[in-house]
Amino acid sequence: MNKVNIEEKLSQIHDYWNPRIAGELNGQHVKLVKFKGEFVFHKHDNEDEMFYVLKGSFKMEYRDKTIALNENEFLIVPRGVEHRPVADDEVSVMLFEPASTLNTGDLENEYTKHELSSI
Amino acid sequence: MNKVNIEEKLSQIHDYWNPRIAGELNGQHVKLVKFKGEFVFHKHDNEDEMFYVLKGSFKMEYRDKTIALNENEFLIVPRGVEHRPVADDEVSVMLFEPASTLNTGDLENEYTKHELSSI
Repeated sequence: MNKVNIEEKLSQIHDYWNPRIAGELNGQHVKLVKFKGEFVFHKHDNEDEMFYVLKGSFKMEYRDKTIALNENEFLIVPRGVEHRPVADDEVSVMLFEPASTLNTGDLENEYTKHELSSI
Repeated sequence: MNKVNIEEKLSQIHDYWNPRIAGELNGQHVKLVKFKGEFVFHKHDNEDEMFYVLKGSFKMEYRDKTIALNENEFLIVPRGVEHRPVADDEVSVMLFEPASTLNTGDLENEYTKHELSSI
């Protein structure tokens, strides 16, 4: 029942593609993450995923189109849809998704984070 | 699969205590709402509720304490806990909660919104 200050939490994140759990409710996680560079195409078979841009901007690539996301914009990627975040510069993002969500979805690679830290 | 611009959506909201649905994922709703004044004490027996301050500030009153929330801070109110938002001035808030959540929880009164509009 304590409040969370986003700026304060973001200041503790010094790496990329490594989501931290900032809140939990109704089986869902609120995660904070910084992106920079290109991620990998992946999908989540059972989870929709929300990306809310807190600071900066990035592009969400689908197989057939790209959506540019700026500060204070959000995007919901439906389950089953392949996607890849690409950030030219550092961007801070809040994620809402089921606690079961693996960051690389159906892939297992060097980006995969099985255990997330809380922040 | 379209992005949502928060500012643009907020500019369409001209009343208070009337949440709009801005997104849906995993059985949860992302809602946008403006508060001003005092709401009523209520609780949600089966839903945790997240309040994220987009613009402005407000206070969340519990029966035994009050938490001041400012821009870019969020609070998760656990199910079963009585709470009342109070805003001295207009505040814009994003809610994240199960689609089943009724705004006045266990109460039925003039604030109750059974049907929410999408925005």
